[in-house]
Amino acid sequence: MIKGYKIQDRRFPLQLGVGSDAIHQDPIYSYTVTSLTDEVGREGVGLAFTIGAGNELVCQAAKFYAEKLVGKDIEEIMASFGSIFNDLSNEQQFRWLGPHKGIVHLALASVTNACYDLWAKTRGVPLWKLLIDLSPQDIVNTLDLSYLEDELSASEAVDLLTAQRAGLGDRIGIINTGYPGYDTSVGWFNYSDEQVKANCRKALDAGFEAMKLKVGSRDPLRDIKRAHIVREICGDKVKVMLDANQQWTLPQAMSICKELKEMNPYWIEEPTHPDDILAHKKLADAIAPIKVAMGEHVPNRILFKNYLQLNATGFVQVDAVRVGGVSEFITVSLLCRKYNIPVVPHVGDMGQLHQHLVLFNHISMGHEALFLEHIPHLKSYFKHPVRVEDGVYHTPMEVGSSCDLL
Amino acid sequence: MIKGYKIQDRRFPLQLGVGSDAIHQDPIYSYTVTSLTDEVGREGVGLAFTIGAGNELVCQAAKFYAEKLVGKDIEEIMASFGSIFNDLSNEQQFRWLGPHKGIVHLALASVTNACYDLWAKTRGVPLWKLLIDLSPQDIVNTLDLSYLEDELSASEAVDLLTAQRAGLGDRIGIINTGYPGYDTSVGWFNYSDEQVKANCRKALDAGFEAMKLKVGSRDPLRDIKRAHIVREICGDKVKVMLDANQQWTLPQAMSICKELKEMNPYWIEEPTHPDDILAHKKLADAIAPIKVAMGEHVPNRILFKNYLQLNATGFVQVDAVRVGGVSEFITVSLLCRKYNIPVVPHVGDMGQLHQHLVLFNHISMGHEALFLEHIPHLKSYFKHPVRVEDGVYHTPMEVGSSCDLL
Repeated sequence: MIKGYKIQDRRFPLQLGVGSDAIHQDPIYSYTVTSLTDEVGREGVGLAFTIGAGNELVCQAAKFYAEKLVGKDIEEIMASFGSIFNDLSNEQQFRWLGPHKGIVHLALASVTNACYDLWAKTRGVPLWKLLIDLSPQDIVNTLDLSYLEDELSASEAVDLLTAQRAGLGDRIGIINTGYPGYDTSVGWFNYSDEQVKANCRKALDAGFEAMKLKVGSRDPLRDIKRAHIVREICGDKVKVMLDANQQWTLPQAMSICKELKEMNPYWIEEPTHPDDILAHKKLADAIAPIKVAMGEHVPNRILFKNYLQLNATGFVQVDAVRVGGVSEFITVSLLCRKYNIPVVPHVGDMGQLHQHLVLFNHISMGHEALFLEHIPHLKSYFKHPVRVEDGVYHTPMEVGSSCDLL
Repeated sequence: MIKGYKIQDRRFPLQLGVGSDAIHQDPIYSYTVTSLTDEVGREGVGLAFTIGAGNELVCQAAKFYAEKLVGKDIEEIMASFGSIFNDLSNEQQFRWLGPHKGIVHLALASVTNACYDLWAKTRGVPLWKLLIDLSPQDIVNTLDLSYLEDELSASEAVDLLTAQRAGLGDRIGIINTGYPGYDTSVGWFNYSDEQVKANCRKALDAGFEAMKLKVGSRDPLRDIKRAHIVREICGDKVKVMLDANQQWTLPQAMSICKELKEMNPYWIEEPTHPDDILAHKKLADAIAPIKVAMGEHVPNRILFKNYLQLNATGFVQVDAVRVGGVSEFITVSLLCRKYNIPVVPHVGDMGQLHQHLVLFNHISMGHEALFLEHIPHLKSYFKHPVRVEDGVYHTPMEVGSSCDLL
């Protein structure tokens, strides 16, 4: 039984240039940390990610949700988490502040993720193991599929998961081989060209076969030059992703992406505003076969549904510390599976939580094990930091969701 | 020059049943009230609307924005408010919490609206008068048109406003005749059938030619029965609007709207989730010529642009105390004008501010003077409450935007 909770506002200033992109110049990586404590002193820890100012508001909002779980048993909560999530996210007065987006939804993510962590710790297993051992019906019971009735009913979701059971034996081997990673930290926006070059070489030496460069400069020539620098150092076989972090207008994106196509990017990420579904659709059509990727700022399953229905993005980067936590992450992943769109999460959690979720997505849902973003800057603050070696995430074996902070 | 600011958390409990709808059963109408004080003691007052819990979070977020205006001259602020709005709404760390939605955007609305109020008070005129006297270029300077480049450039906006100058002489007469109102308070969700009947009769006696009924019951038969009750009492000439407040799934909406068409509603409002653009589009196509109305929960110009591009709603109910204030309200109204979609605001402000804005939309933008929602429950708390007589809003003549609270 959950006896109490604690919400902490944790902020981690970064070295100059680290984390910089076209929109966010000086981020302070921050977490709203929800801890739910049970009667034997177990602590379920959940995160929501922000980049500094206002993290205290997410913390306050998280209290609103955490309070409502006190006195409840974690197994009972998780047996019908979909309905609890629905109740919490639709608390009528609080709902007005979203609905299902912004600070209140980030806060719900933090509390939701603490529930999943406590659940796995209670069962004494890593979260990925807990999830792959659930029956399709048990999984679907943890999901709120409301407002998806036109695309994904509960029985369709069960069927989809059941159908994937056949290939489970083939896919389980990834536990031993590890999930591939890609390196995001080679090309932060404010890094000099020389720094980018050196980082690319380091990433190659470390075994990464995919990496990301931040673009979206006021001067398009800077973007083009840097993109070619990365391609030159990495060679043709390495996947290079370009990330504009919403900086471009649609006309700007149309124009520069035609130039950037020349260096054969694996995807173009967040070209413009995350609410502009039709702009993404137009760009995706214009730059095919190069694909658009986005989702780190899409707040909920309903907007993702619209993106998928319009075929407006080639990769979905849903982030479990942006949408309403693990539950909604799984819901969005199921939608993507139906549409055959790869899920490549944005990792506001630095991959701690997502290393579990991508294993589940691959093993139980049949998503391709493409690669998971790797950002190393907060490693020293986690109790069980991700282990990435030879460009591959080692499977976490500690109980829970690997989100305990020191 | 703005010397200081004050943010107040004002809450107004309502009588039982008042304000109830299918989703929001017990609202406490609440305002985040921003006051900006200048060197002579003038107070610019701006509102954002919530329905209770969490209003304190909007207040805290409003401080973040208000702080940045201290020391600035209001005329200088408003001379290029579009660029100031862009700066504020893109403050990089705070932006993560939206972007451009939820609590941070509600907070920005409160501060933005205080700027417009102070501007009008400084010039000694009602806000509607200030707005209609601005040149097209001056108006466009107050707008942030970023992420609309594919649909509405600054020069297109100036052209649109300039073209409307021709009919201004014909439309200015509305200042004397008043702007029509419609009565929302006849049919709150929790009112009994008898209460609804009595309210309809009262509304007719008060001169209203349009009124609204809340639907979205768990039992569709209740909705259908009540809709017919209202039609029967009002007769065929009165416009009756039905408002589901996001309660239905798309399949539910499809099914019940086919039944509700029989009583010839003027529109079906907020049938489903406000982020579900494609669901609205499908429903709009299915129930034509009956029209869909929505927008009270759409947070910004970019999502509205998507609704308009897909022709997914027949009426836009943008609310200046939900989007980023008067500036973004005008931006959305311009987009709607381009698409020939009527703007019929939701009035979280109880019409105090919107009575100014619809006059401007009609006189300067050439929008049809259809009608403005009227909700009387907070009249006694305003210094200059709206005056609605014979179903018509009398033009406010006090200086400012009529948002001073007692």
